[in-house]
Amino acid sequence: MTFSGPFSTRRNSSSITDGSMPLSHEDFMNRAIELARKSMLAGHGGPFGAVIVRDCEIIGEGSNHVVLHNDPTAHGEIMAIRDACANIGNFSLNDATIYTTGQPCPMCLGAIHWARLSRIYYGFRIEDAAAIGFDDTAIFAQFSLPPSERLIPSTELCRDATLQLAGEYASMPQRVRY
Amino acid sequence: MTFSGPFSTRRNSSSITDGSMPLSHEDFMNRAIELARKSMLAGHGGPFGAVIVRDCEIIGEGSNHVVLHNDPTAHGEIMAIRDACANIGNFSLNDATIYTTGQPCPMCLGAIHWARLSRIYYGFRIEDAAAIGFDDTAIFAQFSLPPSERLIPSTELCRDATLQLAGEYASMPQRVRY
Repeated sequence: MTFSGPFSTRRNSSSITDGSMPLSHEDFMNRAIELARKSMLAGHGGPFGAVIVRDCEIIGEGSNHVVLHNDPTAHGEIMAIRDACANIGNFSLNDATIYTTGQPCPMCLGAIHWARLSRIYYGFRIEDAAAIGFDDTAIFAQFSLPPSERLIPSTELCRDATLQLAGEYASMPQRVRY
Repeated sequence: MTFSGPFSTRRNSSSITDGSMPLSHEDFMNRAIELARKSMLAGHGGPFGAVIVRDCEIIGEGSNHVVLHNDPTAHGEIMAIRDACANIGNFSLNDATIYTTGQPCPMCLGAIHWARLSRIYYGFRIEDAAAIGFDDTAIFAQFSLPPSERLIPSTELCRDATLQLAGEYASMPQRVRY
């Protein structure tokens, strides 16, 4: 199987969708695994890759680049979402599916919601990620605590000035909803 | 007060820290508010700005660019984390504090954990964000549900092949922990 296709000219994207045959869920996950392995072996980050699919076509791809980019937000899912949105020129990925080698961490699950993705297929579980040294489980546990009991202290500040700002936004008729 | 300083040559950064006087928490939040307002009025995104401070110095700044960049992950906190990490050349922001105009959404709270930030100061609350049209509250609610009950369906796929990948990563002695 070749992983180049009609979308190989897209920025950062290649595709296994050449139209010759319908692709399966496993084909898309295998592409995510391939991206993850390539990135991992190059030392760019952990074993995390993702592809985003709409209408049986890959519209975005990504892999973990935390180490290469010195960017703690450069998880595979975030990279794939940014790639897909850049490719289609829209901040919404509704009706699209993400295939990711690892169950999304809280940051990526949040990003998946903001991107309006419709479905998730994942490979290993967050507890499997914990077993190879990643904190997903501990971070998820923080979310179920009241803010006052979380590990990172969080303090309200300048409520009046920031509410004023929020009010100014709400009164902008031309604002774009996202 | 001027908002240019010795770090104004940094990529995307300016600073209110010119060494002439100690700055207060409110000074840093006011800088976040200024960034948010500028971005909001330009139509780049919502009323969200953030600065990251270590040793009384601003090391990163960001504001919401979801609309301008067509990037649903371009929240103020994410932009500030990426800017700070690029400026210091490290994926860890331990001992640093984030000041953000709005209480972090789940995506940004996850990113704050991965970035190892030590403290959060926030302006308006997630329920205030909900009142001006943002989904933070609804997304937080999803996190407290078991995966099978969440709005976005999530399905395990290719467990064996992805566990093989995770095992390969764990056996790489030269991997960088993050």
